[in-house]
Amino acid sequence: MSAPLRPPAEGEAAAGPPRPAQHSSQASHRLLAYSDALLSIIATVMILPVAHTKIHADQKLGESIQQLLLTKIAVYLMTFLIVTVAWAAHVRLFQVIELIDDVLALLNLACMMLITFLPYSFSLMASFPGVPVGIFMFSTCAVVIGLIQAVIVVYGFYHPYLLNHQIQAAEHQAVYKYRILQIILRGPVFCLLAAVFSFFFIPVSYVLLGFVIFFPHITQLIIWCKNKTIGSRAEEPHSLESFTFYLNEPLSKERVEAFSDGVYAIVATLLILDICEDNVPDSKEVKDKFHDSVMEALSQYGRNFLAYFASFVTTGLLWFVHHSLFLHITKATRFMGLLNTFSLAFIGGLPLAYQLTSEFEKKSHNEIEAIQVSCVIAFFASIFQFAIWITALFHERETLHPLARYGGKEHAFMFAKLALYPCVSLGAFFLTCLLSEFSTAIFHIMQIVVPFAFLALRILVRMSLAIIKSILSVSRRKNVLLDEEETCLSPAETLS
Amino acid sequence: MSAPLRPPAEGEAAAGPPRPAQHSSQASHRLLAYSDALLSIIATVMILPVAHTKIHADQKLGESIQQLLLTKIAVYLMTFLIVTVAWAAHVRLFQVIELIDDVLALLNLACMMLITFLPYSFSLMASFPGVPVGIFMFSTCAVVIGLIQAVIVVYGFYHPYLLNHQIQAAEHQAVYKYRILQIILRGPVFCLLAAVFSFFFIPVSYVLLGFVIFFPHITQLIIWCKNKTIGSRAEEPHSLESFTFYLNEPLSKERVEAFSDGVYAIVATLLILDICEDNVPDSKEVKDKFHDSVMEALSQYGRNFLAYFASFVTTGLLWFVHHSLFLHITKATRFMGLLNTFSLAFIGGLPLAYQLTSEFEKKSHNEIEAIQVSCVIAFFASIFQFAIWITALFHERETLHPLARYGGKEHAFMFAKLALYPCVSLGAFFLTCLLSEFSTAIFHIMQIVVPFAFLALRILVRMSLAIIKSILSVSRRKNVLLDEEETCLSPAETLS
Repeated sequence: MSAPLRPPAEGEAAAGPPRPAQHSSQASHRLLAYSDALLSIIATVMILPVAHTKIHADQKLGESIQQLLLTKIAVYLMTFLIVTVAWAAHVRLFQVIELIDDVLALLNLACMMLITFLPYSFSLMASFPGVPVGIFMFSTCAVVIGLIQAVIVVYGFYHPYLLNHQIQAAEHQAVYKYRILQIILRGPVFCLLAAVFSFFFIPVSYVLLGFVIFFPHITQLIIWCKNKTIGSRAEEPHSLESFTFYLNEPLSKERVEAFSDGVYAIVATLLILDICEDNVPDSKEVKDKFHDSVMEALSQYGRNFLAYFASFVTTGLLWFVHHSLFLHITKATRFMGLLNTFSLAFIGGLPLAYQLTSEFEKKSHNEIEAIQVSCVIAFFASIFQFAIWITALFHERETLHPLARYGGKEHAFMFAKLALYPCVSLGAFFLTCLLSEFSTAIFHIMQIVVPFAFLALRILVRMSLAIIKSILSVSRRKNVLLDEEETCLSPAETLS
Repeated sequence: MSAPLRPPAEGEAAAGPPRPAQHSSQASHRLLAYSDALLSIIATVMILPVAHTKIHADQKLGESIQQLLLTKIAVYLMTFLIVTVAWAAHVRLFQVIELIDDVLALLNLACMMLITFLPYSFSLMASFPGVPVGIFMFSTCAVVIGLIQAVIVVYGFYHPYLLNHQIQAAEHQAVYKYRILQIILRGPVFCLLAAVFSFFFIPVSYVLLGFVIFFPHITQLIIWCKNKTIGSRAEEPHSLESFTFYLNEPLSKERVEAFSDGVYAIVATLLILDICEDNVPDSKEVKDKFHDSVMEALSQYGRNFLAYFASFVTTGLLWFVHHSLFLHITKATRFMGLLNTFSLAFIGGLPLAYQLTSEFEKKSHNEIEAIQVSCVIAFFASIFQFAIWITALFHERETLHPLARYGGKEHAFMFAKLALYPCVSLGAFFLTCLLSEFSTAIFHIMQIVVPFAFLALRILVRMSLAIIKSILSVSRRKNVLLDEEETCLSPAETLS
C-alpha cells in the first residue's frame, strides 16, 4: 500500500538528469528547492523585529517580555504559521504537477513574490488592528496567490504531460481538475470575503482569516476524533475518495527536510549578520575610547562572541538531531509535519534568545530571566522533535526505518539523542532557580559543551548496550539488540 | 570518459533511501545541502554593511560611492571570494568522503561555525589594516578549519567504507591519503605563517593570505596557458596524475546549483527583511504626522515597495535564467564555477542597488547615478551568466545537453534568454544618459515588465524559428531547427 501512495516525483526529479526533451518540460527539483529556501527564510523573518527590540538597561526584563509577548512574538508565530500553510499548499500543488516549463517557473516566482509580502502585510495588520489597510492587503495577496495557483493547475491540466503520472493515467481528469481547483480556491474565496468585510466590519474579516489558516488542522483534528470515537483507524485510507488522495497524502519528506534546512540555516546565520553589522569597532571610537588598542575595543564584544558560538552550537546540534531523526523516518505524515512546524517556530526564536543573553550580562535579575527564556525556547524546540519521534513510533511500520523501530539497532541511540536537549535545557532552567551565581557565561559554556555530551552519549549508549548484551549472553539467550559496530567486520558480515 | 569522471555520490545520495545499515553511516546529501545553505548566506552577508551605509541626502552620491567602493565593497567582494574558496574546498573534500556518520557530521558543523566567523574577522582586517588582530584572527580560523578538514580526511581513511568508491577500490590508499592531506594542509600552513608574521611584519601576512586565496586560480591559469602555448588540449586529462584526479575534476553540478540557489534566495529575501523591519509605520507617528491615516503613512513608503518588487523580479528572473542555463549544462568545469562565482557576487550586490534606488527618488543627480549603479550590477551579473554559456559552448560535447548545443532545438532560445538581461540593463543605462526625465519609477516599472518580455521572447523565437523553417521547407531542404512544440504531438513522435 505504501508504494503507490508515494508519487514518484521526488526520486525521479532528484536522481535523473534533466528531461527537457519532451515538450521542453523540466524536472521541478531545483524550482522546489529554491521555493523552499525562499519560504523558510520568509517564515523566520519576523523574528528580527522581535530580536531587535531595544530594551533599556534600567527596564526590568519581565515587563518588556510581557509587552513583547503580546504583540511581536504573536506576529512572529502567526507569520510562521501562515507561511507554513502557504508552503504546505505549495507542496501539495507540486505533488499534482511534477514537471515544469518556463511558464510555470515564472508563475511560481510571481507566487513566491506575493508570499514574501505576506509577513509585511501581517505586521501591518498587527500594528493597526482597527484599520482595514493591513487586512485588506493581506487578503488581497492571498487571493492573488490563490488565483496564480489556480492558473498553474489549469495550465498543468492543459498540458497533461506536466502532471503527476497517476493523474495522467486517470480516466476522469476533468473531475480531478475541478476538485483540485475547488480545494485551492476555497481559501482565496474566504480571503476575498475577508477583504470585502474589512471595509464594513473588521472582526468578521479576522474570523474568516483565522478560519482559512486553521482550517486544514481543524479538519484533520475532526477526522482524527471521528476515527478515534468510531475506532476505525484501519479504514482511514479507504474511506478517502480517490481524487482527494493526492491532497491528503503525507507531505513530501524531501521538501520537509529542505524547508527545515532553510530555517536552521537562516537562524544560524541571522546571528552572524548582526555581529558583522554591529560589532565591528569604529576606528574613531577606538582612538578616542580605547587608546588605539583594537583588542581592548573587541574585549567589550566578548560576550557577544560567546553568545554567538553558543547559539550556533545549539542551532547546529538541533539541526543534527533533526537530521538524524529524518534519516530514520521514511514518511512524514501531516501531524508530524505540524509538530515539525512547531519545533521550527521555536528554533526561529533562538536569535531572540541570543539577543537577550548577549544584552544582559551583568544585571543579575534580567540576566537570569534571559537565560530562562533561552532554556524555554530550546526546550520546546527539542521537545517537539521528540514528539515527532513518538508519533512516528506509534505507526512505526509505516513511518520508521526498521533499524530505528522499537528494539532496532539504532533505537536506543535515537532516543538518547532526542532526549539530550530537553534534559539539558530543563537542567539549566532549574539551575538558574537554585544557583544564585549562575551567569550567562556559564550558560554559554554549557551550550558549547553539549556536542561533547553527544559524543559521550555515543560511548555511553554503546557501553550500556554492550553490558546488556553480555548479561543476555550470560543467560544464554539470543538477544535482539546486537550492536556490531564496535568490531570492524567486513560489510558482507554486517549486512544481515 | 565522462562517466567515470563523475563520482556516483550525488545521484545515489539524492535518490536512494538513507543507508544507515552498514556501520551506521549515512548518505551525505542533506549535510551538504545544509552546508551549501549556510555558506551561501555567509558569502552574501557582507553586502549588508554596504547596503546599510547611511548616505546623507545633501551628499553627492558620487563621492559616497567612491568611499564605499574603496572599503566596504572591497570587503564584500573579498569575503565572497574567500567563502567561495572555502566552499570549493568543502565540495572537493566531500567528493572524497561520500558517506558520513555522526562524528563527521559534528566535525562538519564545527567547520561551518568557523567559516561563518571568517567574514567578521575579514571585516576587522579591513577596518584596521595596520593592527595584527584582524589578520591573526582570520589566519587562526583558517588554520583551525584546515585542521578540522584534515581530521575529517584521517577519520575517513580510518573508516574506509565512508570513502569514494574509486578510492575504496584503489590499491595505494595511503598514498591518496597523504596526497589529499597535503593539498588540504597547504593553505593552513601558509595561514599559520601569516599568523606568525602578523606580529612582526604585516605586509608579508597579506601577501601570504592573498597567495592562499588566489592559488587555485593561478595554478589553473598557468596550466591553461601552458596548454595553450604547447597546444595539447586533448592531453590535459591524461597529464594529471591519477591521485589528483578527484581534486581537479569538475565541481559537483548539484552543489554549484545548491550554492547558487542559496545566494539567490538570501538576496531576494534580504530586501523583505529590511522592509519588515523599517517600513512598518509607528502608531504614534501615524497619529501625530499623518492625521491617523495609515494609508497616508504607507504612501511615503510607496517607492520602497516598488523598489522591492522590482528587485525581487530582477533576482527571480536572473535565478530563472541561471536555472534554465544549468538545466542544459551537464558538467560544471572549474572555470565555469569561477564565472558563476563572479555572477553571484554581483547578484549579491542587488540589495545595494535596491537601497540606492529606494533612497534617492526625487534628487535628480543622485537618482540617475543610483539607477546607473543598478544597471551596472545587473549587467555584470547577467553577462557572467552569458560567459558561462559561451564557455560551455566551447566544449559543448562534454558540458552541454545535446538539445542546447549549436543547432539544437533549445539553442536559440537559451541564447535569447541569456542575452535579454545584458541588453535591458545596457539599454536602461544609455536611457539614463539620454533622457533627462528618466526616473527611478520608470526604471522599476521597466524591471517589472521584463518577465513579460521573457514570454514575448518565447513567442518571438518560435515565430522566427517557424519562419526559418518555412523558408527552408520552401527551398525543399531538410532543416535541423525543427520546433515541434507548437503542435501537440504524442510523446512517441517527439522523442526522435
